[in-house]
Amino acid sequence: DSSTNTNSDAQSQHPSLILTQQGVKDIRANLGSIPIFDKTLAANKVEIDAEIENGFDVPIPKDYSGGYTHATHKRNYILMQKAGVLYQILDDEKYAKFVKDMLFQYAKMYPTLPIHPKPRSYARGKLFWQCLNDSNWLVYTSQAYDCIYDYLSEEERTTLETDLFKPYADFISKENPQFFNRVHNHSTWGNVAVGMIALAMEDDSLLQTALYGLKDVNLDASLKDNDGGFINQDDQKIGYFANLDEPFSPDGYYTEGPYYQRYAMYPFLIFAQALQNKKPDLKVLEYKEGVLLKGVNALLNLSDADGDFFLLNDAQKGMSYYNSSLISAVDIAYHFGGNNPELLSIAEKQDEVTLDDAGLAVAIGIKEGKTKPFVKKSIELSDGANGDEGAVGILRSGDLELVHKYTAHGLSHGHYDKLSFALFEDGKEVVQDYGMARYVNVEQKGGGNYLKENTTWAKQSIAHNTLVQNEQSHFQGKYDIGSKHHSESYIFSVNTDSVQVSSAKEENAYPGTKLHRTMVSIKETDLENPYVLDIMRVESSTENQYDLPFYYLGQVIQTSFDYSKSDVPQILGSANGYQHLYNEAISVADGANAKLTWLLDNKFYSYTAVTSHNDEIILARIGANDPAFNLRSEPTMIIRKRNTKEAVFVAAIESHGTYNPVSELAVNAYSHIKDVQLSYNDSNYTAVTIEDTKGGVQLFIIANNDNSKTKKHTLTINSTSHFWEGPYTLIKIK
Amino acid sequence: DSSTNTNSDAQSQHPSLILTQQGVKDIRANLGSIPIFDKTLAANKVEIDAEIENGFDVPIPKDYSGGYTHATHKRNYILMQKAGVLYQILDDEKYAKFVKDMLFQYAKMYPTLPIHPKPRSYARGKLFWQCLNDSNWLVYTSQAYDCIYDYLSEEERTTLETDLFKPYADFISKENPQFFNRVHNHSTWGNVAVGMIALAMEDDSLLQTALYGLKDVNLDASLKDNDGGFINQDDQKIGYFANLDEPFSPDGYYTEGPYYQRYAMYPFLIFAQALQNKKPDLKVLEYKEGVLLKGVNALLNLSDADGDFFLLNDAQKGMSYYNSSLISAVDIAYHFGGNNPELLSIAEKQDEVTLDDAGLAVAIGIKEGKTKPFVKKSIELSDGANGDEGAVGILRSGDLELVHKYTAHGLSHGHYDKLSFALFEDGKEVVQDYGMARYVNVEQKGGGNYLKENTTWAKQSIAHNTLVQNEQSHFQGKYDIGSKHHSESYIFSVNTDSVQVSSAKEENAYPGTKLHRTMVSIKETDLENPYVLDIMRVESSTENQYDLPFYYLGQVIQTSFDYSKSDVPQILGSANGYQHLYNEAISVADGANAKLTWLLDNKFYSYTAVTSHNDEIILARIGANDPAFNLRSEPTMIIRKRNTKEAVFVAAIESHGTYNPVSELAVNAYSHIKDVQLSYNDSNYTAVTIEDTKGGVQLFIIANNDNSKTKKHTLTINSTSHFWEGPYTLIKIK
Ligand SMILES: [Ca+2]
Ligand SMILES: [Ca+2]
Ligand SMILES: [Ca+2]
Ligand SMILES: [Mg+2]
Ligand SMILES: [Mg+2]
Ligand SMILES: [Mg+2]
Ligand SMILES: [Mg+2]
Repeated sequence: DSSTNTNSDAQSQHPSLILTQQGVKDIRANLGSIPIFDKTLAANKVEIDAEIENGFDVPIPKDYSGGYTHATHKRNYILMQKAGVLYQILDDEKYAKFVKDMLFQYAKMYPTLPIHPKPRSYARGKLFWQCLNDSNWLVYTSQAYDCIYDYLSEEERTTLETDLFKPYADFISKENPQFFNRVHNHSTWGNVAVGMIALAMEDDSLLQTALYGLKDVNLDASLKDNDGGFINQDDQKIGYFANLDEPFSPDGYYTEGPYYQRYAMYPFLIFAQALQNKKPDLKVLEYKEGVLLKGVNALLNLSDADGDFFLLNDAQKGMSYYNSSLISAVDIAYHFGGNNPELLSIAEKQDEVTLDDAGLAVAIGIKEGKTKPFVKKSIELSDGANGDEGAVGILRSGDLELVHKYTAHGLSHGHYDKLSFALFEDGKEVVQDYGMARYVNVEQKGGGNYLKENTTWAKQSIAHNTLVQNEQSHFQGKYDIGSKHHSESYIFSVNTDSVQVSSAKEENAYPGTKLHRTMVSIKETDLENPYVLDIMRVESSTENQYDLPFYYLGQVIQTSFDYSKSDVPQILGSANGYQHLYNEAISVADGANAKLTWLLDNKFYSYTAVTSHNDEIILARIGANDPAFNLRSEPTMIIRKRNTKEAVFVAAIESHGTYNPVSELAVNAYSHIKDVQLSYNDSNYTAVTIEDTKGGVQLFIIANNDNSKTKKHTLTINSTSHFWEGPYTLIKIK
Repeated sequence: DSSTNTNSDAQSQHPSLILTQQGVKDIRANLGSIPIFDKTLAANKVEIDAEIENGFDVPIPKDYSGGYTHATHKRNYILMQKAGVLYQILDDEKYAKFVKDMLFQYAKMYPTLPIHPKPRSYARGKLFWQCLNDSNWLVYTSQAYDCIYDYLSEEERTTLETDLFKPYADFISKENPQFFNRVHNHSTWGNVAVGMIALAMEDDSLLQTALYGLKDVNLDASLKDNDGGFINQDDQKIGYFANLDEPFSPDGYYTEGPYYQRYAMYPFLIFAQALQNKKPDLKVLEYKEGVLLKGVNALLNLSDADGDFFLLNDAQKGMSYYNSSLISAVDIAYHFGGNNPELLSIAEKQDEVTLDDAGLAVAIGIKEGKTKPFVKKSIELSDGANGDEGAVGILRSGDLELVHKYTAHGLSHGHYDKLSFALFEDGKEVVQDYGMARYVNVEQKGGGNYLKENTTWAKQSIAHNTLVQNEQSHFQGKYDIGSKHHSESYIFSVNTDSVQVSSAKEENAYPGTKLHRTMVSIKETDLENPYVLDIMRVESSTENQYDLPFYYLGQVIQTSFDYSKSDVPQILGSANGYQHLYNEAISVADGANAKLTWLLDNKFYSYTAVTSHNDEIILARIGANDPAFNLRSEPTMIIRKRNTKEAVFVAAIESHGTYNPVSELAVNAYSHIKDVQLSYNDSNYTAVTIEDTKGGVQLFIIANNDNSKTKKHTLTINSTSHFWEGPYTLIKIK
């Protein structure tokens, strides 16, 4: 074959990672008629044109994050990636030249660089203080190199590969196996960095290292990373595929939670996209039954009505599917995942696409009017590599979204919050998870890093809407213990909107104590809004103190119980998070329902809890022992039972009314729950009766030890017999 | 003239109050082509059709507000008013019949009614517990009667007037002179009620009573109303015009503040509209140089960027120009006030018009594309009937709106807050006025009425951003004393955006102590945002403790000073509002600037205060001695000077940066004010130097005792002489 070989084999051509030759042709053909793409392109062009005008800097590395050299190298790789794309799409050599000039400065500097001077990392980089950031650089720069590959001469390519890319890839892999050979989000970035440059250089041996790890490396078993996690575990799995196997469940849930999943998805997906284009035979998107695409779906389902991710484990409030990594994720999932038209509605909200084949597909889909709403339903997402380490249960009904957490620990970002929950209404937190104690990138707050209150407060059990025994956190607040266990899903049943059930058990948080929490979303025909029924059963071999906090957000409007407010708040306890709570007021229950009505953002909510005689009700506030005002001053209500072996905490949670500050009208300011009673409880069954103010009476019964869907049950309560099939029933008494 | 007399004299025809015969013709001619009007009409039709379907009730009065009979009679008058309008516009007799049937039930019941059984009011009504609500009823019902006047037979009209309207009007006037013959918003409603029915019945004698009060009535000088205000004052002015004279300043500012102005405007304007239609010779809209139309303009200017009214005196947060009384006000001001096209932009935001001639004019204006933006500029609004009792100064620059209060007391709704201020950015409170301690119509909170914390906290000086001497409120917190005094405007100069000044003096709040506060909005070319300079001078004949609180809203990010946080908060004081504050942390100043940086709603703000050695800085929080959680838990920073005769508190307030929780980028998280110094101070001059982080240095000088705009000044500071003309200057040193 004497023709030029530039068109003979698409898979060996450039660009071929994120953009493809065909993709570029299609993009050029559609420019000007694909609004969301055109808009993103125009914004990038403005940005890069200004940068080309200003010139760039490739400084000698010396700073931690926040410092100039760190920020500059970080910016540089983003600029190169964008400029490479602009070169391909706009066919203007000034963009290619910008990338080339910068790469040659890196190629000149890199061979001279020692290990980065800042010593804090277990895996120090060269451009940055940690290999993680060096890997980020290479993931983006590989894309730029791919885009300008054909613009460079063969000699130029040889220089770049010999002086920069190959030693760079070796450094973050062979020279840092404690970084590269793990199952950890750091290693994912390392694997993907090596894999991306391998694809760009067409270096198959390097690609094998990326996919399957470095062979024959022995690491010291006592090594720990900066978060205190062990580096070398028994039967350590390694490489990209191993990283796909472990932290993702078959449902696509990432064990650290959605805040970190959002961060982790980018390298996973960008490499998958490149592999799909360049090595389609690997069928990476079909790996583990399509776990990557399931991951995108899981992540979108782990967001509230306006796209904010639920707060599970370490997570900062306000992170959402508007984050740039989700723009990639949605576009890739659409393009490579069967063109699900519901994803287009998310892309429309994001109002931006990736400037590549995937983004083009999305832009065309939107232009052609294929968009359908992304409907989030109730869903259970299993945790654990095999999906058998608990789950997150999400109940959705009306505007309410309840998040029930009964997962595994979540690696080093996990919280001691077994069976905890949070409640959202229309995208707004109503009963909160505190999230993390950190102000990311706000330098004044501990350099923007995790604050010590993250450990002393945010991770502790009492900081969550879950049961705390004897003022100790679950698993003694110890990572080594927590990591060995997970809760168990018991029921997740959401087939009818009138009653949806998420029930789970936790038997390891406190040895000798069994916790079983059932959360039910009930939509009665005679009430406007659905409400939540919460049943927390505890059984122990010993007498304990049990605290159940309820982190409502808003202003107290009324309580059904009398309380005495202390002159000055008292610190609630001495450790395990209790040292951060002020006791503001206390009440001793008389055995009647304890109802709290509060107002948040012009909506009225009520919590109606069953109490036993002499239960204590503590109205508390976050903020004690917080010397730098790192914590948010927010309230909680705690129900405390002392010297108790077995107990059932039962409560109803409602959104029932609105306040309009313009018309000054309060509508349905009073709770619609008249009475909640524990009607029956033994080891086999628990029954709760709920009476509403419209005269309706409902009886909810759950079988505590048999979740068979076909088992037939009979239970007699107060001489009335009830019959049903399956693990629970909701009976309309009136 | 043998023709029917129905068309002979437009002024004697019906409808003629709010709707006119010509207006009805014009409305009918335009229906279907005036979207905002059509939409409002359709909504009203749906509402009233449903009510006609459901039937109505005219119960025997027995309840306070919140109860059934109160709510029903209140609803009835609204329904009648709307049904009357629908009859005129849609020409469908079912609406007239609905009004007629209801009126005849009232006419049957009214003669049998005793005084309302609930005893709490100083002026008990018949349909309602207070004459105020009876008056509300008649203001609306008069409009309904006018609309169906021609539908009724002469005999029917005679019955209604004899059995219902005349005795009704007599009851709220002659039989309740302590209610009717005052200058007070209650009396305004009473006067207007009588005036409206007088116009509808064409009873000129009654109209005179409405306009000029009841003659020859002697009231007991010791009588007080429910708020504790004296009813009979020397030279008591009476009637509608007197009520227009007194509480409105020539600028249209209503002395109680915008929250109550919004409530008061409706009767003033609805009656003015009827008078304009029916008695144009009275030229009511030209009265006091057009004070009513100026009042609408003042009220709109007393709102933040998204229309919420500034919190002056008793005021609930969230009340805005979306309130229905402002819909009337804007439409009337447009129609009768020269068709100012800027008002159309407010009407567009309101998305609703009144269903009358005024609303038609607005709808046509919008339809014809005449809308212009309503631009709010810096403005000073005088207080007092003659405009010589202080003022409110509003400085607007960029997104910042500063409200500086140096008014008279504000009648029974006044707060002890001389020279206080509040700061808004883009419609959001940044440095707050607490507002009132009340949850209007939230029955669980004290029946929706004023809470005792309104007196013990919200009205007190320490609850405001102003100076407090010796932990006593201004005027000893006594209404009788506060009502005798007002602050004085000293400078209000807003001609250039680069420097705007609001300066005022208060010499009566603490006898022997003179307060002089100057607030400056400065827009430097080298800083992105404007900032506020705050200079509070105090001179006293005695040594005192001075506290200057600063009610920032948000989370502490950093302070430049070390503080020690108490283990548990301590109550700050024993009375005058201090009993409601917790002292959370304390610092002793070293004489350097004390800087507080905080984060609110993803924006970074800083307060940079000049301190003297041994000043105390107290970080405090609202909530002590609040047994029912009526108060909001919000922070303040107090600078305290002890044993001091003369002092100058100087500070800069900036909005300087943003946080994006999606990209996690903090931009300009640090203050741009490097240093603020008091460079000079004596009885004649005060000078402040502000150095910014971009290298700029500015010197602001104010002459303390001469506000002449033409006076030439010389001042030498550190051997540099400065020359300028007028009461202040801002000099760019670098
Ligand atoms: Ca949200
Ligand atoms: Ca506002
Ligand atoms: Ca706003
Ligand atoms: Mg949101
Ligand atoms: Mg948590
Ligand atoms: Mg607002
Ligand atoms: Mg106030």
